[in-house]
Amino acid sequence: MKRRSLIRSEIRCLSAYVPGEQPRGTRLIKLNTNENPYPPSPRVARAIRRHLGARLRLYPDPVSLRFRERIGRTFDVDPERVIAGNGSDDLLTMGLRAFAGEGDLVQFPWPSYSLYPVLAGIQGARVRRVLFSERYELRLEQFDPRAALTFIANPNAPSGTALTTAFLRRLARRLRGVLIVDEAYADFARENALDLARALPNVLVTRSLSKSYALAGMRLGFALGSRELIGAMFKVKDSYNLDQLAQAAGEAAFADAAWHRRGVRRIVRTREAFRAALEERGWEVLPSEANFVFARPPGGAAEEWFLALKKRGVLVRWFAARETRERLRITIGTEREMRAVLRALDISRSGRGSHANGVFRRTGMETGMPIQA
Amino acid sequence: MKRRSLIRSEIRCLSAYVPGEQPRGTRLIKLNTNENPYPPSPRVARAIRRHLGARLRLYPDPVSLRFRERIGRTFDVDPERVIAGNGSDDLLTMGLRAFAGEGDLVQFPWPSYSLYPVLAGIQGARVRRVLFSERYELRLEQFDPRAALTFIANPNAPSGTALTTAFLRRLARRLRGVLIVDEAYADFARENALDLARALPNVLVTRSLSKSYALAGMRLGFALGSRELIGAMFKVKDSYNLDQLAQAAGEAAFADAAWHRRGVRRIVRTREAFRAALEERGWEVLPSEANFVFARPPGGAAEEWFLALKKRGVLVRWFAARETRERLRITIGTEREMRAVLRALDISRSGRGSHANGVFRRTGMETGMPIQA
Repeated sequence: MKRRSLIRSEIRCLSAYVPGEQPRGTRLIKLNTNENPYPPSPRVARAIRRHLGARLRLYPDPVSLRFRERIGRTFDVDPERVIAGNGSDDLLTMGLRAFAGEGDLVQFPWPSYSLYPVLAGIQGARVRRVLFSERYELRLEQFDPRAALTFIANPNAPSGTALTTAFLRRLARRLRGVLIVDEAYADFARENALDLARALPNVLVTRSLSKSYALAGMRLGFALGSRELIGAMFKVKDSYNLDQLAQAAGEAAFADAAWHRRGVRRIVRTREAFRAALEERGWEVLPSEANFVFARPPGGAAEEWFLALKKRGVLVRWFAARETRERLRITIGTEREMRAVLRALDISRSGRGSHANGVFRRTGMETGMPIQA
Repeated sequence: MKRRSLIRSEIRCLSAYVPGEQPRGTRLIKLNTNENPYPPSPRVARAIRRHLGARLRLYPDPVSLRFRERIGRTFDVDPERVIAGNGSDDLLTMGLRAFAGEGDLVQFPWPSYSLYPVLAGIQGARVRRVLFSERYELRLEQFDPRAALTFIANPNAPSGTALTTAFLRRLARRLRGVLIVDEAYADFARENALDLARALPNVLVTRSLSKSYALAGMRLGFALGSRELIGAMFKVKDSYNLDQLAQAAGEAAFADAAWHRRGVRRIVRTREAFRAALEERGWEVLPSEANFVFARPPGGAAEEWFLALKKRGVLVRWFAARETRERLRITIGTEREMRAVLRALDISRSGRGSHANGVFRRTGMETGMPIQA
């Protein structure tokens, strides 16, 4: 008997999402996956320690009620309008499964978070990329009002740019389907879409605790929207999607608002200083409202700069696609780390001039910068 | 403009999976969700404590390599043939998304784990229930060989019964699609399907650390199968589906094999003693290979017994469907807890005879058993 393929055709042809490198046990300055350079609030570890022991034998609260109540108080909404997720990726998956079926249209600006086309592909949805201009701007008319689901990462990754709330409001009114505003980076921005999610029935905002709360290692996120949207997501979520420790960690993180505010302020300050320093060196930097910058070196040979930085122990992110290949995405680390990046850039530049073929000379030995394999 | 519904029609009509009650802050004897009555290995808490601190700001390993290597050593397979999940529900979801698309046929024995029809419904797959006989037996010819995906919970819930490995081998050979053997309870059984998953290209075994490892609170599971099946599941999994602490907890739990063996042995011993005690009282108990029994009281008025036990502080599970309504599913707790259950049954029985209408008399006050609201 001829066996049919065991794997769905949509999945066979699918390229999985590729996360940034997670090197272990090196002394790299790691600025490639937009992690927070500062530790999470010490209350998080305390809350987790309190939960260790025999209690782990019991199932967690399937609906993360206490965590959602804490979010409700923080953002002034009914907990019924909040759902918690195992990272905001979990919430984006729920959104896709709740709002877009096989053959439905899913649209999103591009270049953006590369998980969107992967999720749409898994669902067998049709994908429409709404192309950003060179300056990462968009017009309302570029969107198809008939889409079942529209994702907007705002601020966007990898560009760091943000659309205004006024634009998003007009867009939401134009769309017949659901608009998910993915605000993983919104704590570093001037505006956010929470008011839209509170007021409009088709707008959902997703948030992550990975970036501004420094909890990437815990996988915590939440979404906020109308009862109708949140209710549908509850139907498709995994029964127990957040473990006990994650729920406790999330509650504790929100309880320490001062720690969060201070961390965000430091990163924004460092970002602005770093941006100015890059511009002094002739780099073209997109206006960033996130905890990273997306910048074009003079000449646009970003891959060479990526490799040169890596040799000097600085890991940033370079995306090979045509639309992104002339820029580097550099996470904002501590002030000290960003000074080290600038030194590594200066060394690479001075080394570079002496090589006609554009391959940088190794100069780390001469300057005392660590060189990693 | 008339808005179309924001929610997919498949989801609008879907009833979500309903987990068992998780009462908090009561002195109930909780025997309703098949949790382990003993605590997890103390190595788990130690491993988690070691991971607390600044490291939580970093993303976890997206592919849970060290945890999978540990599983590979434990079960003598290449880690490439293992995938880790946020509980085995996460793995069942991945299986559905990887192996069955909209309109494809998904089949499973019934009554069984009520998450299967929910997951199939979310995916828009066609569902075929393969009905167990009264004694929870099946014939090969009942299965449709053309199904894209077949789930078998083995041992089955809520019955606790198990199909033989020989039967599953014949079934796997008959099926043109994928067979997922959901072995959440296999550590309490005499046989398992790991050899099938090692040998046959279309068999996948899923396991959970919730029951025999006493880690329901951590959400940990894994699946083992051919490279082809595991590779497809990697494509559909959430990028970072297990947080740092869960990965560390899973590794630590597998490192303490003696603790695990001892816990399983105690529960199996208690199960057999409890089964005999129920049978002495005229209950009909299905042969259980899990950490619970599924038993029919004399007369079959299971709901009344459920309520009577609840009044006396013992929470068990009763499923209202026609096929299950004459039985109770009772998780095996500690020996002491099971003795308390038997006492509560004896009191209820003696109270019952005096009421023609079948509503039990409250006798807790007379016997000193705690009565919960």
